[in-house]
Amino acid sequence: MPGKIRTAQSVSLDIPASEQPYLHNRWHPDIPSIASVKPGETVRIECLDWTGGQIGNNDSADDVRDVDLTRIHYLTGPFDVEGSEPGDLLVVHITDIQPLDHSPWGFTGIFARDNGGGFLDRHYPRAAKAIWDLDGIYCTSRHIPGVRFAGLVHAGILGCAPSAAVLAEWNRREAELVGACAQSHPGQVVALAPLATNAHAGAADGELRARIAGEGARTIPGRPEHGGNVDINNISRGSTTYLPVLVPGAKFSVGDLHFSQGDGEISFCGAIEMAGTISIRFDLIKNGMEERAIKSPVYRPGDVAQQFGPSRYLTFEGFSVDEAGRQHFLDATVAYRQACLGAIEYLKQFGYSGEQIYLLLSCAPVRGSIAGIVDVPNACTTLGIPMDIFDFDVSVEAERVPRSLAPCPVADPRVR
Amino acid sequence: MPGKIRTAQSVSLDIPASEQPYLHNRWHPDIPSIASVKPGETVRIECLDWTGGQIGNNDSADDVRDVDLTRIHYLTGPFDVEGSEPGDLLVVHITDIQPLDHSPWGFTGIFARDNGGGFLDRHYPRAAKAIWDLDGIYCTSRHIPGVRFAGLVHAGILGCAPSAAVLAEWNRREAELVGACAQSHPGQVVALAPLATNAHAGAADGELRARIAGEGARTIPGRPEHGGNVDINNISRGSTTYLPVLVPGAKFSVGDLHFSQGDGEISFCGAIEMAGTISIRFDLIKNGMEERAIKSPVYRPGDVAQQFGPSRYLTFEGFSVDEAGRQHFLDATVAYRQACLGAIEYLKQFGYSGEQIYLLLSCAPVRGSIAGIVDVPNACTTLGIPMDIFDFDVSVEAERVPRSLAPCPVADPRVR
Amino acid sequence: MPGKIRTAQSVSLDIPASEQPYLHNRWHPDIPSIASVKPGETVRIECLDWTGGQIGNNDSADDVRDVDLTRIHYLTGPFDVEGSEPGDLLVVHITDIQPLDHSPWGFTGIFARDNGGGFLDRHYPRAAKAIWDLDGIYCTSRHIPGVRFAGLVHAGILGCAPSAAVLAEWNRREAELVGACAQSHPGQVVALAPLATNAHAGAADGELRARIAGEGARTIPGRPEHGGNVDINNISRGSTTYLPVLVPGAKFSVGDLHFSQGDGEISFCGAIEMAGTISIRFDLIKNGMEERAIKSPVYRPGDVAQQFGPSRYLTFEGFSVDEAGRQHFLDATVAYRQACLGAIEYLKQFGYSGEQIYLLLSCAPVRGSIAGIVDVPNACTTLGIPMDIFDFDVSVEAERVPRSLAPCPVADPRVR
Amino acid sequence: MPGKIRTAQSVSLDIPASEQPYLHNRWHPDIPSIASVKPGETVRIECLDWTGGQIGNNDSADDVRDVDLTRIHYLTGPFDVEGSEPGDLLVVHITDIQPLDHSPWGFTGIFARDNGGGFLDRHYPRAAKAIWDLDGIYCTSRHIPGVRFAGLVHAGILGCAPSAAVLAEWNRREAELVGACAQSHPGQVVALAPLATNAHAGAADGELRARIAGEGARTIPGRPEHGGNVDINNISRGSTTYLPVLVPGAKFSVGDLHFSQGDGEISFCGAIEMAGTISIRFDLIKNGMEERAIKSPVYRPGDVAQQFGPSRYLTFEGFSVDEAGRQHFLDATVAYRQACLGAIEYLKQFGYSGEQIYLLLSCAPVRGSIAGIVDVPNACTTLGIPMDIFDFDVSVEAERVPRSLAPCPVADPRVR
Repeated sequence: MPGKIRTAQSVSLDIPASEQPYLHNRWHPDIPSIASVKPGETVRIECLDWTGGQIGNNDSADDVRDVDLTRIHYLTGPFDVEGSEPGDLLVVHITDIQPLDHSPWGFTGIFARDNGGGFLDRHYPRAAKAIWDLDGIYCTSRHIPGVRFAGLVHAGILGCAPSAAVLAEWNRREAELVGACAQSHPGQVVALAPLATNAHAGAADGELRARIAGEGARTIPGRPEHGGNVDINNISRGSTTYLPVLVPGAKFSVGDLHFSQGDGEISFCGAIEMAGTISIRFDLIKNGMEERAIKSPVYRPGDVAQQFGPSRYLTFEGFSVDEAGRQHFLDATVAYRQACLGAIEYLKQFGYSGEQIYLLLSCAPVRGSIAGIVDVPNACTTLGIPMDIFDFDVSVEAERVPRSLAPCPVADPRVR
Repeated sequence: MPGKIRTAQSVSLDIPASEQPYLHNRWHPDIPSIASVKPGETVRIECLDWTGGQIGNNDSADDVRDVDLTRIHYLTGPFDVEGSEPGDLLVVHITDIQPLDHSPWGFTGIFARDNGGGFLDRHYPRAAKAIWDLDGIYCTSRHIPGVRFAGLVHAGILGCAPSAAVLAEWNRREAELVGACAQSHPGQVVALAPLATNAHAGAADGELRARIAGEGARTIPGRPEHGGNVDINNISRGSTTYLPVLVPGAKFSVGDLHFSQGDGEISFCGAIEMAGTISIRFDLIKNGMEERAIKSPVYRPGDVAQQFGPSRYLTFEGFSVDEAGRQHFLDATVAYRQACLGAIEYLKQFGYSGEQIYLLLSCAPVRGSIAGIVDVPNACTTLGIPMDIFDFDVSVEAERVPRSLAPCPVADPRVR
Repeated sequence: MPGKIRTAQSVSLDIPASEQPYLHNRWHPDIPSIASVKPGETVRIECLDWTGGQIGNNDSADDVRDVDLTRIHYLTGPFDVEGSEPGDLLVVHITDIQPLDHSPWGFTGIFARDNGGGFLDRHYPRAAKAIWDLDGIYCTSRHIPGVRFAGLVHAGILGCAPSAAVLAEWNRREAELVGACAQSHPGQVVALAPLATNAHAGAADGELRARIAGEGARTIPGRPEHGGNVDINNISRGSTTYLPVLVPGAKFSVGDLHFSQGDGEISFCGAIEMAGTISIRFDLIKNGMEERAIKSPVYRPGDVAQQFGPSRYLTFEGFSVDEAGRQHFLDATVAYRQACLGAIEYLKQFGYSGEQIYLLLSCAPVRGSIAGIVDVPNACTTLGIPMDIFDFDVSVEAERVPRSLAPCPVADPRVR
Repeated sequence: MPGKIRTAQSVSLDIPASEQPYLHNRWHPDIPSIASVKPGETVRIECLDWTGGQIGNNDSADDVRDVDLTRIHYLTGPFDVEGSEPGDLLVVHITDIQPLDHSPWGFTGIFARDNGGGFLDRHYPRAAKAIWDLDGIYCTSRHIPGVRFAGLVHAGILGCAPSAAVLAEWNRREAELVGACAQSHPGQVVALAPLATNAHAGAADGELRARIAGEGARTIPGRPEHGGNVDINNISRGSTTYLPVLVPGAKFSVGDLHFSQGDGEISFCGAIEMAGTISIRFDLIKNGMEERAIKSPVYRPGDVAQQFGPSRYLTFEGFSVDEAGRQHFLDATVAYRQACLGAIEYLKQFGYSGEQIYLLLSCAPVRGSIAGIVDVPNACTTLGIPMDIFDFDVSVEAERVPRSLAPCPVADPRVR
């Protein structure tokens, strides 16, 4: 008789993340496995929020401004999946994700330009924050009045450990980019090299720990070989992801749970970040990478999601001409930035600050689409905003009435 | 008593496009208006396919290979909208789009790499073609067996004429790009300068015609100031687009009708291109650009679209690491290319050629999303394919059975 | 090379329906077939509106009040489908439905209680009418201001001819009901017996015509053996219906096209009735009735429909306690009537007359659901109204502001 | 700073329901309130399953067969809502519903014809049962293999206490029905009169308790004046229901939580019945019954639900001709029964027993619609089954392969 679903790993909100041995914040094949799961089994896995608890439920953005980005992405794992071998596909079917019952809140942040930054940091260089209260499947924020929506709860990070060869390739190509950009993008963080400071290698200690700290890949980027920090908002309840297995046992890890996130997660700390519990049913497709011709993660969204009706999305077009009027060649990233900036100017009319909308576009269920990618020189992207998340009418036709909305906290620049 | 909807302009499939004076293929403020419409009025406007009839309903891709890209985008217009002035927003509500009744077919093409190219031209350099039979709201192709879907019929191009100042800015910035790329991208067409050859300035003649031919902006790119060739597939029936008005009378033009198109239109001639009739109800928001804070087109999709269920989309992830293993910095364009390439390799398993899938991803209702745009150095994009458009099961779980599918025509390279 | 889709039968708006030999208004196995279609073939079939042109595009409801209900449901057909035999399933895949191009309007009527009646005729005994202007996929009515919606265009009637045995059974059981109700429902039309008056038997003449007129089943009810007048609004574009074949050749007929209809079609002449063209692709499943265990029609809706978002439906609950406070036993029909009456009282607050809402609930895309059918003695049904079809806010929270809306024509009772 | 959501009332799975003083199983104005909530506040309320724990997680249907139907519907409440008075509308916004964490299972039952019965009890007179394992938002049953779906979790019962006058009216009209049916429906339970046996009046004792037991309305039927046992499956997470307030304080009660239910809940114990926790945010619209013209409950569904795509619903038509070939007059209840019976015969082909499908149609997300309610004499209803809940293809086109599926428990008739 099936009973209650097994919790494969719990976490503590009271012990520092760096001291919890079933967490880690680097990708490396040799981080010790913490538990084993069977194909066909559903287990619950608890996760900390991605900062490991650095951000507080309060009305100051100083903690966001001062966040220590070497102490992030404490993932729960790695888990061995019985019988898995390199070349298999690990099937990750998410049956539920919930905030921790005793912690029904989350946060969205704008990082300061000189400590983390984000998609629009040239426009919004100061740190800002919004705290969200989670009420069942809905959320509201005292820092962004007038909006309320159901979250498409998801895991920002999920993936299997890289093999040594894959890890070496990551380090090679990212170092190459850093080198190539040293002159063209001076001072810009284009990629993060391995860093021993605050590396958490789970239960590894001694020499192993030192080696992992020295070689382990940073967790910020998603990567094609295994997924990782993909920040895909519809890898949600009911979704099924097919992950390449690169090491014996798969060594699956998960973390960075999001109550909600817009396409792009544009403010970088842009989802509604939370600690929570994810329930996963694992399966294996033996030799699936070759037999199914899958080299990068593939997924099917769940069949449960918000439904706003397509005509309820006010949609902004963005092209690859940048803010300074400079023409870029089929650059969808520049184009999406323009769509975001257009939406911000539009929504400011209703009484919000730019930071509030920047936060909102990052975390609300907005849709970012690649419309046209071939019409030289302009990529065309779109940003769709579901109007029904607002308490008032934000359509083009709506009358603009002065509204006095409470602000979100914005931090003064740090004095060094 | 309202009667039949007025046809504001019809076109001929028998007269060369260049000889039909109500068509034009450049953007310029001085192309003579062909008719006037009133705010509140719905009119029908006929349009040629974007090549003006260069492609035939046959089984050879030679016409696609040999297409003359100086003779494209014959737009119907410009139409004056009564009372419109610069600074207004022109409201374009599409109430219907239909293929021409006596021409129920369309085409999708892959251009040869040396004549047009496309998103994947390094991988698929040869021209290829698929002819689609339009059966009501559905389409099938003898060149891509095993698929059938309803089209989200839309207009690829719609926009108002640029002012002289806007036109000058377009020419300036695009020329700047061409200059900047001359060394970095030798031989690559990064933007198209004004070109007198085959310029069609509508009813203009003499000196005016020569001036328009010399100054007029090419129609390939969409542009932020007015929209134009945005290739957004949900600017479909029921959609409402708010277009900046830049010249007195608005001078609205429309064309490049698509029976269906995937996000990105990746093969460039990637939609199901067709001649057809669009019905538009026009309205005006006076001084809307300032009072609504809208500088680039904004739209609301229609409330009628295909509904596949989110879990029916098999979704491929793509990251900004290119085919050669080179790391790019937050480049969503590179990332989307990887998602497309992954999908092609996957679907080849079911019996298709690469060209067939390349064509299919271009024109079928696939979804391209910007998932994460801040996780340095990897942008993450996704490509979702609705599995229900296939006659057979293409899920990851599906058994791979050998299928012998009829091919699409692929042209030998042109001998020069 | 496929060409234009063949029109299997056209109709005339100028010749009286009763004189067009490819129409018929009775169900009988011996009505002569008018044409033959092949499995796999798509054909277009034109249809008159269900009254055969009795209702005019004007502002009087007198024609609705005086409608001759012996001259209705002129169906186009019957068509032989090659190879079909009793026991097969005829697969009817609708690829398109359009209003006749030169007749872009439709009508919705409330019949007078003493001539046709309807679901709420005790409350609204007088005839009323709304004319709808069809603008592409959208419709509006000068008689019901403030609403606009896209139609889910469908065929009210489609079915194969009954066999002689099935026809006899229909006549038996309906006569039995008439007999049983003669005392319990005096004066109420509970079913319609065969009637020679104005019977139209297609091309039949002489004795055959007389026999058909004498025996032929009336077309008002849908019937389980073949479907017929089912008035199911999502047998629309893209739908596939599996129809039992009861006679050699199938003898398929179709008519009663609706631009839109709410669940229940409550005012009886409740859809937006129109003349139009339907495109159907036919197929056969040999011996499908037995091998697929299908005795009554089964269908799959199309994948293209309006999408309002579930939370945009204001939904009224109705229970089987009637207007007089009388308790009925699990009577879903009584329950649905209460939901309709509740919705009418609610929407009257916004300035409409009861007749206007009665018409609107009949034809707009409202959803009627059977919620609970087992909680003795009350069946519970619901009526969901998509709020987005209104120009103004009709939510419970909306402020009630006095609105002066133009009325719909209502006819004085006929003097006899 | 908002904290964890307050639990307004918890329940025990270990103490008999009849001994928990915050539960009641009759509707009466004088059942003592158990707690008070404020408008604007969200609270959690725990509920037992509707049988108060009579059914076990095992493989015998004997407990369903022998269920004591005088001991059901133990509702949690009544709750006073501060400031509410008769004539107000109580706004019930459900923000979450979850099964009790330590009890992740539910059940669906077919009652024996002589003890409860159900919609198809003449066809399936024996008791049967399915146990469902709840895995996050999904469920599966060892008793109905081959299906798996996400639940649209909802509350079967919610309503405010009746006033004395409303209660008297209920008792009057239901007694009248019982009287009227005594001859026409001998032996049939058409309504349930007040019954002292096992009446649970919450904390009431002594005389008050006796009076409530003698007068209190039974909870089985939903009723138009207050809602109650409406069994509407989309009164789910995110829904907002507007309930008439009939007594000072509103006296709101809730219970009968369902993990999932099909339209109609046809087997009577037809939902996936469970114990759980519901989170509700309350609000008030003062004098809303008159000012909003609402006499019966009205609701808006939530915006989060399963999305299968309309074309994924295999839909059965049912008409008001009964199993014996008898014609009924516009009887939607008879019609819906035929649709259900047709679906059962169809799905039996895939290896299921009739009881299994009867259970499945009761609890899976099937859609029951009122298609046409005016085409005398046949009401037409439809039953849509989402094909994607099955592990295998159940389309009409699917090959019928013999499957050996594990059965569900069916109980032998009780010997008396």
